[in-house]
Amino acid sequence: MEASPAPVPPSPDPAARPRRAGYRRLPVQQRREQLIAVALELFARRPPEEVGLDDVAQAAGASRPLVYRYFAGGKQQLYEAALRSAATELTDRFTVPPAGTPTQQLSAVLERYFSFVAEHDAGYSALLRGGSVVETARTSAIVDDVRRAALRRTLRHLGVRQAGPRLTLLVRSWIAVVEGASLSWLDEGRALPVDELREWLVDQFVAMAAATALHDPQTAEVLAALLALEGPNAPRTARLRAVLGASGG
Amino acid sequence: MEASPAPVPPSPDPAARPRRAGYRRLPVQQRREQLIAVALELFARRPPEEVGLDDVAQAAGASRPLVYRYFAGGKQQLYEAALRSAATELTDRFTVPPAGTPTQQLSAVLERYFSFVAEHDAGYSALLRGGSVVETARTSAIVDDVRRAALRRTLRHLGVRQAGPRLTLLVRSWIAVVEGASLSWLDEGRALPVDELREWLVDQFVAMAAATALHDPQTAEVLAALLALEGPNAPRTARLRAVLGASGG
Repeated sequence: MEASPAPVPPSPDPAARPRRAGYRRLPVQQRREQLIAVALELFARRPPEEVGLDDVAQAAGASRPLVYRYFAGGKQQLYEAALRSAATELTDRFTVPPAGTPTQQLSAVLERYFSFVAEHDAGYSALLRGGSVVETARTSAIVDDVRRAALRRTLRHLGVRQAGPRLTLLVRSWIAVVEGASLSWLDEGRALPVDELREWLVDQFVAMAAATALHDPQTAEVLAALLALEGPNAPRTARLRAVLGASGG
Repeated sequence: MEASPAPVPPSPDPAARPRRAGYRRLPVQQRREQLIAVALELFARRPPEEVGLDDVAQAAGASRPLVYRYFAGGKQQLYEAALRSAATELTDRFTVPPAGTPTQQLSAVLERYFSFVAEHDAGYSALLRGGSVVETARTSAIVDDVRRAALRRTLRHLGVRQAGPRLTLLVRSWIAVVEGASLSWLDEGRALPVDELREWLVDQFVAMAAATALHDPQTAEVLAALLALEGPNAPRTARLRAVLGASGG
């Protein structure tokens, strides 16, 4: 639950009001959004323990008491508001573009995902790695919500209405691989080309679905439908078969 | 850093010593190990926030001051000692048995892994899920050590001396899938048969390696060597090729 900011008293004559240099006066909702945006940017670039309320105030051109007027819970409340805003932004990127084969669509979503990861670098790492000082049951719940949204969107993309436990496990596992791969990518100073990583993840999806299809008729059906849309001579699947030793079979 | 327990004064004549009913006197090292074992069992069955120092003392047949004499840092220190002991136990299970094909060996290691997961149920979940009250930089480091050991052992099993970034990413990703699958398994009341889950994970390994081989010569070489040891007609790979639509290729 978020506390509402105390009302900001209206000032009848701006010229008569004493002003502190550098502090700008903004309408309530706009100020709130600005503070969240500033906090999000700071939390994106540095681990949460290195961001103080004073940094947010300074970057926002506001005073510390003003920040507290909007976020009585201080840094923790501001962090959670910023996290919620980032979660909404990320979830919005899961929307599948209408054109393309299923794997091309998946690739397009991953492209947006990686641009989010690149923009929120340190914050993304701190959040997913856990053990951060600002981590609470509430922040974990926000992250879980994003994961659930990713699961729902992926299943919908696959045309699945009611996923059984094995298909659910497949999609959850693949989402974990996406998260792990983006963390590794950040850790290693973005050494791997992001285009390659994205294509690797799409190949992982097809391969992991194939491995799951061996154990689950629902996944087998979903995979067959996906491969049919890709076309029988899709290079991706042909190459996967080849490395699995088609010649020796 | 762990504080050493304060020395227990020797008692020259046990018969002359006053005893509290139900409290047993144990040698220092034995008592320390007993307290860790008791704590580990409690932390395995319940989330850390539901285990108190009094519970440990009671289950160990010891007094609260005695527990503090060994673990001056209280519950947190005891939790970390128990976690370290569990981490050692888990890492020991990564040893690959000498007989069998590579995937049979992988399956044997996974069998031991799942028996560990089954034994440490609630503790395993709390630890890997994050956001727990006892989570610190130290506990995260212990978990990271276990993951690093799993990575090292898997690479050694594959006969790799120096893994490039793509092969490392593959093995790390697969380890994340193993963790995620065991958490899902616990979450869903162990509904999926553990034997199926284990075989699913071995199939995932082969499939994920195949997807990585498309992007990385080192992985392609490792996979080819693994498949050669499995035999050209290994049913696992033949079935993987089949669900990838060998007939349509």
